[in-house]
Amino acid sequence: MADDDPTTEFSPSADPSGSSVGAPVRVRVRADTLRPLLSAVGSLVDECRVTFGPDGIRAAAMDPATVAAVEVELSASATTAYEADGTTVGVDVTRLREVLGMADDDDPVTLAFDPDGRRLHVVAGELEYAMGLFDPESVRGPPDIDELGFEHTAALTLPGETVGRFVAAAGMVADHLTLGVDPGEGAFVASADGDTDDVRFVVPAEEAAAFEGGEAESLFSLSYLECIERAVPSGADVRVTLGREAPLGVEYEVADGGGRVEAFVAPRLQAV
Amino acid sequence: MADDDPTTEFSPSADPSGSSVGAPVRVRVRADTLRPLLSAVGSLVDECRVTFGPDGIRAAAMDPATVAAVEVELSASATTAYEADGTTVGVDVTRLREVLGMADDDDPVTLAFDPDGRRLHVVAGELEYAMGLFDPESVRGPPDIDELGFEHTAALTLPGETVGRFVAAAGMVADHLTLGVDPGEGAFVASADGDTDDVRFVVPAEEAAAFEGGEAESLFSLSYLECIERAVPSGADVRVTLGREAPLGVEYEVADGGGRVEAFVAPRLQAV
Amino acid sequence: MADDDPTTEFSPSADPSGSSVGAPVRVRVRADTLRPLLSAVGSLVDECRVTFGPDGIRAAAMDPATVAAVEVELSASATTAYEADGTTVGVDVTRLREVLGMADDDDPVTLAFDPDGRRLHVVAGELEYAMGLFDPESVRGPPDIDELGFEHTAALTLPGETVGRFVAAAGMVADHLTLGVDPGEGAFVASADGDTDDVRFVVPAEEAAAFEGGEAESLFSLSYLECIERAVPSGADVRVTLGREAPLGVEYEVADGGGRVEAFVAPRLQAV
Repeated sequence: MADDDPTTEFSPSADPSGSSVGAPVRVRVRADTLRPLLSAVGSLVDECRVTFGPDGIRAAAMDPATVAAVEVELSASATTAYEADGTTVGVDVTRLREVLGMADDDDPVTLAFDPDGRRLHVVAGELEYAMGLFDPESVRGPPDIDELGFEHTAALTLPGETVGRFVAAAGMVADHLTLGVDPGEGAFVASADGDTDDVRFVVPAEEAAAFEGGEAESLFSLSYLECIERAVPSGADVRVTLGREAPLGVEYEVADGGGRVEAFVAPRLQAV
Repeated sequence: MADDDPTTEFSPSADPSGSSVGAPVRVRVRADTLRPLLSAVGSLVDECRVTFGPDGIRAAAMDPATVAAVEVELSASATTAYEADGTTVGVDVTRLREVLGMADDDDPVTLAFDPDGRRLHVVAGELEYAMGLFDPESVRGPPDIDELGFEHTAALTLPGETVGRFVAAAGMVADHLTLGVDPGEGAFVASADGDTDDVRFVVPAEEAAAFEGGEAESLFSLSYLECIERAVPSGADVRVTLGREAPLGVEYEVADGGGRVEAFVAPRLQAV
Repeated sequence: MADDDPTTEFSPSADPSGSSVGAPVRVRVRADTLRPLLSAVGSLVDECRVTFGPDGIRAAAMDPATVAAVEVELSASATTAYEADGTTVGVDVTRLREVLGMADDDDPVTLAFDPDGRRLHVVAGELEYAMGLFDPESVRGPPDIDELGFEHTAALTLPGETVGRFVAAAGMVADHLTLGVDPGEGAFVASADGDTDDVRFVVPAEEAAAFEGGEAESLFSLSYLECIERAVPSGADVRVTLGREAPLGVEYEVADGGGRVEAFVAPRLQAV
């Protein structure tokens, strides 16, 4: 069972596997610190690779159609206890979200591996859940996003709610939308054309934080943006990066800056 | 984009069609002023004729089975800016409700026609929506309700919630209900008979405002009353008129008296 | 119509059948006093036998597969007016819950029989509902639970919410769960084994009220526990009794102690 004092370091008896030998990962962290990270990954995939590195947890995933990718990180400093040796495992994200759904927001949750590394023990209050892990080699790995070296020509920071609104507006008329910056107008523009109706959503530069307005315009499938947007925590500010027929970047902090989510969506070809 | 000050008159730059020539209708009005009118029309039809007259907006519709009709009006004085020349257009009510659903209650919404009158521009905050209009001749027109000259023998005013309760009560046992006034009892009575169960809902004259209690009794299909009742705004008082095997009238004010909804339902033949 | 003063005794005019002759049952009681009793019975069956005895109301039911039984009682002292002669009738519980759903929590509800005992009149405010009754002989009768003489070896009292949590936790991995007490550990343990994942939910003796910890362990189908748990009112404390491959007992008070619910679930055979 979890210790009620989340600041206490692990004692051997807190190890649900009954032994500290060969169980290299033990993390204690509030449920609401983990939730937005799992939501971000779970918006694109059901299973993903998670690495428990020496300085924090990192997970990355790419959707089955390889159109969108997401990378999340949580610093060890955002946890209340952290021990890890760099192990990478394959995790059922959907299931782990359900298990965390049983915990209250401020419940300390303990994650620990079996000695043989085949199961993840999740302890939250009275609940002890042993979850089967996958071979990480069997889970689709995302590309290294930094290596892809996407270049953006425009960037701006928006409330997450604004992203939700232009995605919903576009969804009234079409299944895709164009995102761009018109340097002349000095505004970010989301637009979608339907059979009979069109919609435009305009954010002037002065209403966006950190507006860098080079020319940019790309077409995206709406469904990926809907998934990514749904995972943005209420109240979060989102940094959006755009280019000319280039990927969309969506980036935000979670856990009071102790965690970070970065998502990318590949553009669709523009109809000529 | 909409001006943030809803009391400002239109300036040419506020015209989303980019030109004031030949665009005869421009209205600015709070989202929550329009919503109950659209709900009332949308409860019976998906498309309807809307007339932007010199003194206000008027829409009327009849359900496909021609059992129920609804007429709504909004006075120009209930808007914050109003310019119109009497144009009648065919509007997709369901879609317009969705677009207004993107606005906050107190958002000023601008409605304006394309110069060629084929699209309605709806501007609400950052959102600009161009909606295709129908030829009004292609939309079923309702009868002129005043010309039908319905005569009622009883009338009373009830909280909208009370209408909701007797409609729900009848729905537990049957798909139709009898509404009437028993002059002897001095009460409004809604009743429904099912196979094994019966339900009666009695409002004594002293609990109803403006009770005029001539003899009245008619049978109605429940589904029309359910549609009409769902559109009544919370807290509204509803004037109900009844006759002997005569249409039911349901009437209420919206927008603090600046708008009015009037609905009629034809009676069913009583089983002998 | 119901008298607005719930403490008033019945006057003849309050009898909706228009006559006090031969109508032996008349009860007035708050809607929220009846609701948890009906929820408990309705969680297992749609129809049940109800006895209006001289000291109170009693209903009992067994689910169609005869795995679970429930017995509920309401003392006459928990009502605001009570007259009954021991009549037993068959009641459509699902329907009666719907009718009570039309009443506010503190609405006084009057239950009275037709003179011929074939219909139950439910009066709540403006609503008068006449419900057809069943011949009680046509409704499956439960066994006399006291006669079955279940013996338990362990018992404890838990918040209803805790029962909800271990039932939900087990549901993540399996359709059955094991409930038991480990006298060595001094704890109540709910556990379930799935194909890849296992879950354990441990309540130490010191966190449970009235812990009597003999050895106990039995396997149950989850669906019955889910039904029974859903009916527990928010905030109620639940007494749980367990044995060795013996029925589970679940017992709680309702209506501030004026009513009582007792449910039993038969154990499943343990796989060898």
